Amino acid sequence: MLTEKLQKIYRETGADALYTTTDYLRRYITGFYSTDGYVISDDKGSTFVTDLRYAEAAEKALEGTGIGLVVGSYDRAKEMLEPYMKLGVPFELISHEEARRLADWGHELYDSLPAFRKAMIVKDEKELALIRKACEIAEDAFNALLPEIREGMTETEVAALLEYKMRRLGASGTSFDTICAFGENGSVPHHETGARKLRFGDVILIDFGCKVEGYCSDITRTFLFGDDGRHGAFKKAYAEVLKAHELVKEKVTAGMTGREADAVARDSLKAAGLGEYFTHSLGHGIGLNIHENPYLSPRGEEALRDGMVFSDEPGVYFAGEFGIRIEDSVYLENGKVVSFMNRTKKDLIIL
Amino acid sequence: MLTEKLQKIYRETGADALYTTTDYLRRYITGFYSTDGYVISDDKGSTFVTDLRYAEAAEKALEGTGIGLVVGSYDRAKEMLEPYMKLGVPFELISHEEARRLADWGHELYDSLPAFRKAMIVKDEKELALIRKACEIAEDAFNALLPEIREGMTETEVAALLEYKMRRLGASGTSFDTICAFGENGSVPHHETGARKLRFGDVILIDFGCKVEGYCSDITRTFLFGDDGRHGAFKKAYAEVLKAHELVKEKVTAGMTGREADAVARDSLKAAGLGEYFTHSLGHGIGLNIHENPYLSPRGEEALRDGMVFSDEPGVYFAGEFGIRIEDSVYLENGKVVSFMNRTKKDLIIL
Repeated sequence: MLTEKLQKIYRETGADALYTTTDYLRRYITGFYSTDGYVISDDKGSTFVTDLRYAEAAEKALEGTGIGLVVGSYDRAKEMLEPYMKLGVPFELISHEEARRLADWGHELYDSLPAFRKAMIVKDEKELALIRKACEIAEDAFNALLPEIREGMTETEVAALLEYKMRRLGASGTSFDTICAFGENGSVPHHETGARKLRFGDVILIDFGCKVEGYCSDITRTFLFGDDGRHGAFKKAYAEVLKAHELVKEKVTAGMTGREADAVARDSLKAAGLGEYFTHSLGHGIGLNIHENPYLSPRGEEALRDGMVFSDEPGVYFAGEFGIRIEDSVYLENGKVVSFMNRTKKDLIIL
Repeated sequence: MLTEKLQKIYRETGADALYTTTDYLRRYITGFYSTDGYVISDDKGSTFVTDLRYAEAAEKALEGTGIGLVVGSYDRAKEMLEPYMKLGVPFELISHEEARRLADWGHELYDSLPAFRKAMIVKDEKELALIRKACEIAEDAFNALLPEIREGMTETEVAALLEYKMRRLGASGTSFDTICAFGENGSVPHHETGARKLRFGDVILIDFGCKVEGYCSDITRTFLFGDDGRHGAFKKAYAEVLKAHELVKEKVTAGMTGREADAVARDSLKAAGLGEYFTHSLGHGIGLNIHENPYLSPRGEEALRDGMVFSDEPGVYFAGEFGIRIEDSVYLENGKVVSFMNRTKKDLIIL
């Protein structure tokens, strides 16, 4: 990460030092992933403390970053923090136990999370490249999955196959539990993938994503497993959801709030008489977390800016019948929405 | 979970109510998994609060448990907690932010985690059955993997294939990032699975596991991809690690401390001149967490008891050459060690 960004986080937090133990914030600062360790940052720079398991890899990863490395026991934290009275820690991410320990050691705590969030909401070129890679893998895996879907497969089998393909294409894992819903199960926006078997004529909804160096992709596709001729209402609704999805790409611009962006899709679905079936918000920020700022919802007051990455995912749900959601991960560039996802078809797929 | 166990946790914590927001503790109390929600427990019983997404499934899951269900907004927590002055919360698991909020609402906080840990360290029949299932899936997946391993595959490809097989066999996911190490990579106990390609004569070390309804399995197998005739030292060390592994099953009994159990393997490896290469501890507890109490290490003073589940995983590591680790998930029954793993071979496999 740019030293400049971290210095800004440091200054905004207003403490003598930032003490960062949370894994994804550590990764943001150092670019290096480890299950344990911490970073101490002050106005002079940062020091990453980790253990012997990570020593060799950390040394390589930190080369040229200007971040110091200390390999040793975590017991030294007390001593290393001693020069600093005011400590910046992320209040929502460190445990009550850890906060108590730091207070016992005589530190005064300042919340560093607002400053981290403010910095992390805008992605730099390197971050955009990793998200792009995660999106490409997700789309390629989806395209490879389609010809292998067969009648009688369970939701879990289809999800497992898709996850396997993403992993083989270079993903380190999924960015969240894959949602694979057949038929009526699609009407539950957060359906738990299960043993329901695929039947001819089923609507299939798959919401999935993967990680590349910690950065997430998020995509949903809805399609038909054969057309049993009884899909008139579904096809009509599909066209409207797709229209709302595309309208967001066309109309949303930097400077609009999350609420205004959400309204682009919501107004379009309302005009089509589907407003009441769009039961969630339009989208959420995507980065090292699958859900982060900005939030594109009726309550989203944050203004969208270039470099922000978020999902464009309008959906409609008809209880006991089917659900439709069409989702791309997108970002803002030169004030306009650019989709990371151009490898999959969004016109209705009928297998 | 048995109401009796929860009442014990409640009494030991000494608060007016337990307020439980952490996902795996919620699951322990309710048997139900959700990404959001909380449980309030007092001397009269428990109430699970979740949102509309989980309403239907939660209702079904809680049937007959005596646990009440409230579906509604999380904003109601303040009001629902109002009758209680002293709140039991897990200090290491709730955030500093949440602790501050509760304090602002006028509550006095008590740490509930020690009592939870004490209860969760001994597994009941239902928990043992889920861990057994997770172990069976891991072993079956491993056996199915072996004939599909080919020269030139990367560590990531082998790991992805194994994970896919576990998922297809009914696992909800992995219990940790699969470690697949070829040749010299095996000498790093926590090697990060990567792009190293498999070559004839490589030692393969795979440390993996999966989850069934939240409960974990943990297993490591070390084997040869072809015998290039230069494996004399490896085979000798393998036999010693296997001996130490089996000795643990034979000699460890209820009543011994974690330290004494660790010494069974450590003394055996020391006698074989391999003591200095056994660089980690013998094992760790396994349950809803992949690492939990008890710890079988030179510092483990807790006495082992019937119903405890832990790993038996001695290993030796020769930098730049190879590593050997042989691990089963086991438990104590009638004072003796019983392995969950009887479907895979532990005599050296040569593919």
